[in-house]
Amino acid sequence: MKKVEDYVVTIPDHPIPGIMFRDITSVLSDPDGFTLAIDEMNKKLEGFDFDAIAGTESRGFIFGSVLAYLHHKPFILIRKAGKLPRETVKQSYDLEYGSATIEMHKDDVKPGQKVVIVDDLIATGGTSMATAKLVESVGAEVAMFLFLLELKGLKGREVLKNYRVETIVAYEGK
Amino acid sequence: MKKVEDYVVTIPDHPIPGIMFRDITSVLSDPDGFTLAIDEMNKKLEGFDFDAIAGTESRGFIFGSVLAYLHHKPFILIRKAGKLPRETVKQSYDLEYGSATIEMHKDDVKPGQKVVIVDDLIATGGTSMATAKLVESVGAEVAMFLFLLELKGLKGREVLKNYRVETIVAYEGK
Repeated sequence: MKKVEDYVVTIPDHPIPGIMFRDITSVLSDPDGFTLAIDEMNKKLEGFDFDAIAGTESRGFIFGSVLAYLHHKPFILIRKAGKLPRETVKQSYDLEYGSATIEMHKDDVKPGQKVVIVDDLIATGGTSMATAKLVESVGAEVAMFLFLLELKGLKGREVLKNYRVETIVAYEGK
Repeated sequence: MKKVEDYVVTIPDHPIPGIMFRDITSVLSDPDGFTLAIDEMNKKLEGFDFDAIAGTESRGFIFGSVLAYLHHKPFILIRKAGKLPRETVKQSYDLEYGSATIEMHKDDVKPGQKVVIVDDLIATGGTSMATAKLVESVGAEVAMFLFLLELKGLKGREVLKNYRVETIVAYEGK
């Protein structure tokens, strides 16, 4: 029986030498792969108590929306700065070169709610940590981080060590 | 019974005076709204013959992924230039100020396939027309455009007049 990793295409030295790029578009373009990916992510949520799912722009939207739909939970968008029309909370974080800012509508998550943050990939954990701060800034709680892929060599789990982190496929390298 | 439009928040004069911004994040953050939106979009696909769903970055990912999952069809990403790692086809189109380029992996859609293109909104139809050209450039066919919202005042339907266009909520203005 095929596993999720069988649907992932690895592109060596992309976008720069030494990086093994893990392409998940090949998971999405095969219905069996996409169904399997969602099923595996779903298993992490079975019997788990949560109130909302937040998806990180833009590949987190793909998995987060399906999971929110299936569980009949609110789906919250975490977007790059300047794209949400109502009042937001903002969080900036460092990138290798420069910085980035993400936003969430201030009233989308309520104080005390348990939020599952979904993305396709955990790399350095920088975006994820910023997302956690957004959720916590409105008085809500990060119940779980749920990723399809994990690049263990980038040690994002250490950054998120105070949170529950679930991943489906873990790669040793970067 | 509530309709999809009851979940849409309208923000007058955003981002510039004269524009009524239709915010769909309020549909997503209410599970009943999101379920209703997907149900209504699904009705347009009932008994309809198609092979794949393409979603346009990034809000098209939200609706397209759920519909592809539910119909067990390939989900194809239409992305802004420079984000897809394998060989792509590209299409540029004019914006009010400047231009934009979108891409699709060259081998994601096969010649002869019938593709449903999903996005949250049809405005001027510029992005949609570029997406149609991408799909057709690999020998596939646009079977339907499926949008949650339509801004009739921007006349996107005229741009897409050679295609089947389905929308759930149509607003008269811009």
